[in-house]
Amino acid sequence: MSSGYKSWILLTGFILFYVAYLLLGALVFSTIERPVEDKLKSDIQVLKEEFLNQSCVNATSLENFLEKVLQANKYGISILPNSSASSNWDLASSLFFANTLVTTVGYGHTTPLSDTGKAFSIFYALLGVPFTMLVLTACVQRLMHPVTYGPIDMCRQRIGLDPLAATAVHFAILLLLVVLGFFVVPAVVFSHIEDTWSFLDAIYFCFITLCTIGLGDYVPGEKPGQKFRSLYKISVMVYLFLGLMMMYLVLRAFHRMADLHGLTSFFQLPHCDEDTEEDKEPIIEVGHEDQHEAEASAKPLDPASQTSYNTINR
Amino acid sequence: MSSGYKSWILLTGFILFYVAYLLLGALVFSTIERPVEDKLKSDIQVLKEEFLNQSCVNATSLENFLEKVLQANKYGISILPNSSASSNWDLASSLFFANTLVTTVGYGHTTPLSDTGKAFSIFYALLGVPFTMLVLTACVQRLMHPVTYGPIDMCRQRIGLDPLAATAVHFAILLLLVVLGFFVVPAVVFSHIEDTWSFLDAIYFCFITLCTIGLGDYVPGEKPGQKFRSLYKISVMVYLFLGLMMMYLVLRAFHRMADLHGLTSFFQLPHCDEDTEEDKEPIIEVGHEDQHEAEASAKPLDPASQTSYNTINR
Repeated sequence: MSSGYKSWILLTGFILFYVAYLLLGALVFSTIERPVEDKLKSDIQVLKEEFLNQSCVNATSLENFLEKVLQANKYGISILPNSSASSNWDLASSLFFANTLVTTVGYGHTTPLSDTGKAFSIFYALLGVPFTMLVLTACVQRLMHPVTYGPIDMCRQRIGLDPLAATAVHFAILLLLVVLGFFVVPAVVFSHIEDTWSFLDAIYFCFITLCTIGLGDYVPGEKPGQKFRSLYKISVMVYLFLGLMMMYLVLRAFHRMADLHGLTSFFQLPHCDEDTEEDKEPIIEVGHEDQHEAEASAKPLDPASQTSYNTINR
Repeated sequence: MSSGYKSWILLTGFILFYVAYLLLGALVFSTIERPVEDKLKSDIQVLKEEFLNQSCVNATSLENFLEKVLQANKYGISILPNSSASSNWDLASSLFFANTLVTTVGYGHTTPLSDTGKAFSIFYALLGVPFTMLVLTACVQRLMHPVTYGPIDMCRQRIGLDPLAATAVHFAILLLLVVLGFFVVPAVVFSHIEDTWSFLDAIYFCFITLCTIGLGDYVPGEKPGQKFRSLYKISVMVYLFLGLMMMYLVLRAFHRMADLHGLTSFFQLPHCDEDTEEDKEPIIEVGHEDQHEAEASAKPLDPASQTSYNTINR
């Protein structure tokens, strides 16, 4: 089996296993947290009724009541009647939580309520975070040829730019496309779907999310009575995954450009790592030897280009 | 000036500039958000008094009141009297916020209230996140010799382990020390300082923080009347920085071990990048040529060891 096929099968396997891992996590979180949430919800309703039945409301009783309300709210349990219909731990929401955990975004609008949930979060993220990094790296690895090496070569061969200029022009175009496709367009969509979000709020959400900061002051699909809530949550998860992939790709393209321009040497930082054979696989199948020649001719100025041959051919 | 000195001066410059960047961010956040917070705080107190002065409290008025209380709470403004004394946007808290923003932890227990604050957060993180990565990378780079290469060489030369075994043993010991020093011991300290945190809560906090997930359900120094609050917040920031550095170091040591054991080749992922000259600088000063010889003899089995020479000596 050729190395290219093996690499694609491996990647498909990774992605399928990743989806299965998220589903499994969602099931476990939902099973652990749903009963605790139901208990807290009914407790808070009882509390509300008791408060309303009081003959007189003074500052102390109000403060005691509010303290409990705010405590429950911290765990994502709202006392408001229109919020109590939807659960934070149904399958779609648990899947969303599992996804924000392993991508390290961690909005924190829902957090595990029970000690079991907390312990499972640690265990789940311990495997899930490196696994997500692995899947993202593997995807980016496959995208480097069509998105980075290919267009740079085209710039050089068709327009006749020198390698440094070609890399810089390519990076500028890539950055512009990512900003448009993963910030501006999604922000327009989010500000239309979410009634209370302005365009700035939506851009702020996209940025805070794709940098994995995840403050959680804006979380999509949380308004009461959200239409197609599950589908919406899953779409946001896909956006998150693709967005992170593109951020990683931009970072790698930037690292490579900085390397070519001597910035990494200046800051004495690790050089951009050479990619494995599959990365630079030509679209038209060539013989193994020809392929290496093609690679060698394609990147004559890359200072570390000999690296990959030492590594690959060992 | 020798390359080693230059490298240390560069690193010190980075760190000083990083601290200045955090202080500047804190000042700007504090200036932007403090007035908005004060306004919201007084609004919510007026609301509370109005509610208490009502002749009868019914479900609708309570729900309207609670909706506003929860909305303010989302922005970190608590209606409870003992919480209103401390500000979320004093200098120490703003510094803490700036730090959680650029490290991508993003607890979200305080979030910018104004549009100016949100826009500034985007701009600040846009420069700050890559800058933090740069500072962390530069620090880890300097730590790789004393923490990774040095001990591995010692394992090999003194105990006579083969390179693969030496790397594995070193990784296991490093992992154990990091778990003890950056998870278990801080968790003991946090569970003592924070009254409401159990040991599991504290371990969960350390883990969620150092993975940069930052759910924000546990944030240190937030209890009302916290003693030495500013000092405590700054200590947590130092813990966060050192902890992230160690996580990155462990990740790099793991990547290197995976590389040596052929795992990266199996998954067709980028190989662990060779480090620049300063990384492997011997503690005892040797001549330039001798140093290269020492490096070559130190890592004979590293498949990509020739790389660094091609890159360094070009």
